[in-house]
Amino acid sequence: MAQMCRKWIKREKFVGFPKRENLEIVEESLPPLEDGEILLEAVYLSVDPYMRYGRVYNRKDKDRDDIGLEMPGTQIARVIQSKNPKYDVNDLVLAYSGWVTHSISNGEKGIHKVPVNGSLPPSTRLGIIGMPGATAYFGLLDICKPIKEGETLLVNAAAGAVGSAVGQIGKIKGMRVVGFAGSDEKVTYLKSLGFDAAYNYKTVPSLEAAIKESCPNGVDVFFDNVGGDFFGTVLPLMNKKGRVAICGAIAEYNRKEPLSQTCPINHLILRKQLNVRGFIILDWVDDWDKAFSNMIFWIQDGDLKYRETVFTGFDKMFDAFMSLFEGTNIGKIIVKI
Amino acid sequence: MAQMCRKWIKREKFVGFPKRENLEIVEESLPPLEDGEILLEAVYLSVDPYMRYGRVYNRKDKDRDDIGLEMPGTQIARVIQSKNPKYDVNDLVLAYSGWVTHSISNGEKGIHKVPVNGSLPPSTRLGIIGMPGATAYFGLLDICKPIKEGETLLVNAAAGAVGSAVGQIGKIKGMRVVGFAGSDEKVTYLKSLGFDAAYNYKTVPSLEAAIKESCPNGVDVFFDNVGGDFFGTVLPLMNKKGRVAICGAIAEYNRKEPLSQTCPINHLILRKQLNVRGFIILDWVDDWDKAFSNMIFWIQDGDLKYRETVFTGFDKMFDAFMSLFEGTNIGKIIVKI
Repeated sequence: MAQMCRKWIKREKFVGFPKRENLEIVEESLPPLEDGEILLEAVYLSVDPYMRYGRVYNRKDKDRDDIGLEMPGTQIARVIQSKNPKYDVNDLVLAYSGWVTHSISNGEKGIHKVPVNGSLPPSTRLGIIGMPGATAYFGLLDICKPIKEGETLLVNAAAGAVGSAVGQIGKIKGMRVVGFAGSDEKVTYLKSLGFDAAYNYKTVPSLEAAIKESCPNGVDVFFDNVGGDFFGTVLPLMNKKGRVAICGAIAEYNRKEPLSQTCPINHLILRKQLNVRGFIILDWVDDWDKAFSNMIFWIQDGDLKYRETVFTGFDKMFDAFMSLFEGTNIGKIIVKI
Repeated sequence: MAQMCRKWIKREKFVGFPKRENLEIVEESLPPLEDGEILLEAVYLSVDPYMRYGRVYNRKDKDRDDIGLEMPGTQIARVIQSKNPKYDVNDLVLAYSGWVTHSISNGEKGIHKVPVNGSLPPSTRLGIIGMPGATAYFGLLDICKPIKEGETLLVNAAAGAVGSAVGQIGKIKGMRVVGFAGSDEKVTYLKSLGFDAAYNYKTVPSLEAAIKESCPNGVDVFFDNVGGDFFGTVLPLMNKKGRVAICGAIAEYNRKEPLSQTCPINHLILRKQLNVRGFIILDWVDDWDKAFSNMIFWIQDGDLKYRETVFTGFDKMFDAFMSLFEGTNIGKIIVKI
C-alpha cells in the first residue's frame, strides 16, 4: 500500500511578509521503497528564519522562489520502514526533508541518526544541540573570537533559539553580555539566563542610549541577528578591532524594496578596524559534534539553558514559521506532529 | 648653535577637503641633544591619505584635529648629530617625526635604520618596501587570503602606492586582476603592470557594467581603497565567501556630512557570507621585514614594479598631500628636501 505524504509547497513567491496563500499543502503518494532506502515519518519539524530564503537541501535550483518547490527544513523523523541494513524501524533521524510528513531517504545524504534515549530529548537536535546551537557556538567563538575576559557582547533577537545561546555562551566565556529582545517577558527571561543587561527594543526610548548605558566601555562583539537600522545604530558604538557576526537580518528578510547600494558604514569599519562577517553554519558541519559535546556538558552543569515553544499539528507549520517574524515566542520554535 | 626646525602644524580643523590655510609652517629652535639622543634631518618625506585623519605617532591625544598639532608622517632622515652610540652621523633612518625638517629622537621609539647602500633606493622605504607596500602585502595575503588560483581580485585607486602593489601581488599569486583608477594614463600604466583589465572610473559609462564585463565570474576579493558608492556598487557583485579588505575610504575622508547609520548592505554580507575587514598595517609591524624580503625578490625578478612621484622642497608638502585626493599622480608620492 502506497504511503501518503503531505507537504507544503510554494504557490507564489513571498513578497514582503509571507502570506498563508503563498503556500499550499498538497498530498501525494510516495513510491515503494527500493533497496537501500528508508521511509521516514516526521515527529518534530523545525521552523527557522532562513526558510524565508533558503531552499531544499541539495537542490541546485538557482531560484529559491521557484513555484512548486517544497519549503526547506529539518525534522526529527522516525524510520517506519527500512530496506537499508543500517537503519531499523523506530530509529530516529535528523533529516533535511523539508516541510513534509513522510519522505524517502537513501540513508546517506542529509540524514543523521539521533539517539532514541540520549541525555536530551530528540527535539533538542533541532535547537540547542542542532543548527541554532551550532550557529551560536561557532558564530560567537569562531567568528567573533572573544579575546579577553570581560569584553562586551551585544546580541539582538536575544530570546530566540540562537540569541539566547549566544548570550549564555558569552557568559560562560567571561564576557559582559547585553541582550535586546522584543517583549518585556523576553527581557525577564534574558535576565533569568544571567544576561548582565537586557532591553525591550520596542519600548526603549532610544536604542543608542540603551546601548551606551549598558555598554559603558563600548561594544567589542556584536552578534547581529536583526540587521537594518539596528546594525547601523550599533556600528558607531563598536570598539576598535570589534568583531561583528552577521548571523541573520530578520528585519530585512521581508523588505519589499531592493537593497540600497550606498554604505558609508564602510568608513566606520575602516576607522574602527572592524571585522564584519556573514556566515552560514553548514561550513562548520564537521565540527558540530565537538561543539555539542561541550554544550551538553554546559547544559548538564546548568550554565546553558534552553526553551522550546511547541506548535502541534502539521497544519500549524505556517503559523509557527510566521511567529519567527512576529517575535511572539521565546526560544526554539518547533512543530510536533 | 641651536638647530632650527621647520614644521607644518594645524591651525584649524580640516572641514571637507583640506585647505592650505588650515595649516601653517612654523619655525622653532630645537634644544641641545641630551645623552642618548640623535638629531635628524629629513631627506624624503611621505604623504599618505591617512594623514587626513591620523595623528602624530605615539601621541595619545584624543582629538586628532587638535589645533597646534604637527601633521603626522614618516620620513627618511639623515643623522646629523649623535649622542647615541648606536647611531653614526650620516646614518639613514626611517622616522615617525611628522612633517618636520629636523627632529630629535631617542633612537628607540618610532625609528628604524635604513641601509645607506641597500639594493633599493632609500625612498622606497616610504613606498614599495615601506608602509604602503606592507599594506598591500598583508592586506591582500592576510586579510583577503587568496584561496585558489584564478580568483578574481578587484582593486581601486589601483595606480596608487598601495593599489599598484596589490594588483601585482595578486598576479604573482595567480589571480585575475582588475583595476580601477582615475585617468587614462593610469589605465595604461596598470595594463603595463600586467593587470588583466583596467578602467578609468571617471569616464566609464557604468561602473557596474565595467565590473560585470571584466569580472565575468564575479569578484572573489575586493581590495577597497575608495569606499563610498564604489563599495556599494561592488558588494552586490561579490561571489559567495568573498573577502573585502577595507584599506582606505578616500572618497569619504573629505565628506562634510556625518556618516549615515543605515546600512542594508549587511544583508548582502550575510547572504554572500562575506568577510569585510578594516585594518591598519601597524598591527603587522613585526612581520614587515619578512614581507619586504619577498617583495625585494619580486622586484629584482621584475614581477613587482613601483613608481614614485617626487615633489621637491619642504614647502611642497601640502601640494603633495592634496595630490592624493586630486588623483593627479601615479605611484608613491614623496617630497624630497
